[in-house]
Amino acid sequence: MTEKLSDTARSTMVEPLLETGWALTEGRDAIEKTFKFDDFTEAMGFMMRAAIWAEKWNHHPEWSNVYSRVSVCLTTHDVDGLSQLDVKLARKMDKLAGQPG
Amino acid sequence: MTEKLSDTARSTMVEPLLETGWALTEGRDAIEKTFKFDDFTEAMGFMMRAAIWAEKWNHHPEWSNVYSRVSVCLTTHDVDGLSQLDVKLARKMDKLAGQPG
Repeated sequence: MTEKLSDTARSTMVEPLLETGWALTEGRDAIEKTFKFDDFTEAMGFMMRAAIWAEKWNHHPEWSNVYSRVSVCLTTHDVDGLSQLDVKLARKMDKLAGQPG
Repeated sequence: MTEKLSDTARSTMVEPLLETGWALTEGRDAIEKTFKFDDFTEAMGFMMRAAIWAEKWNHHPEWSNVYSRVSVCLTTHDVDGLSQLDVKLARKMDKLAGQPG
C-alpha cells in the first residue's frame, strides 16, 4: 500500500533529497528539480531512461523539457501528497542524471 | 535563413494547423497543442520520435508530459516568433501522433 509520508519519513527520506537539488513545491505536497544537461540529446536520453523506471514502478512524473533542461515534479495522486514512490523515483533520477543521490 | 512568417505565410501555413488542434499561444508569437495518447508509453514513444526530428532539424520544442498527455509549444527564438521551422515540426508531430496534419 502506498501511504503519505509520515513526519519521520520526511526527515529521513525527503530532507536528504533537498541537499541534491530537489525542493518542496509551493502550494502542493510535492517535490521538484530542474536537471541541466549538455544538450538536447542528453536531456532526451535522461527522460527515456527515467520513463522506463517510471513505467516499471507505475509512478509517473510531471515533467517538461526546454532544450537541455528537464524540470520534474513528483507527487503521488493516490495519496494526494508525497509517498515513498516519489522518493524512490527522485533518487533514481539523480542516479540516471549522474548527479549525487 | 530562418525568417519570421509573413502575413501571407500565416494564412497559408498556420491557419491549416489551427484546424488540426493547434492554437495560437497567448502573449507570444507561438503555437501550442496538447496531444492525448492511450497511456504513458505511447506518450513517451511520441516524444522520442519527435525528438529525433527536432534534433535533426535543430529546432527544439518546449514541451511537457503528464502521463498520457504531451503539451507542445513551438516558436523560433532566433526570429522571436513563428517561422517555417515551427510549421514543419508541427506537421511532423501531427503525423507522428497519427493525427490529421
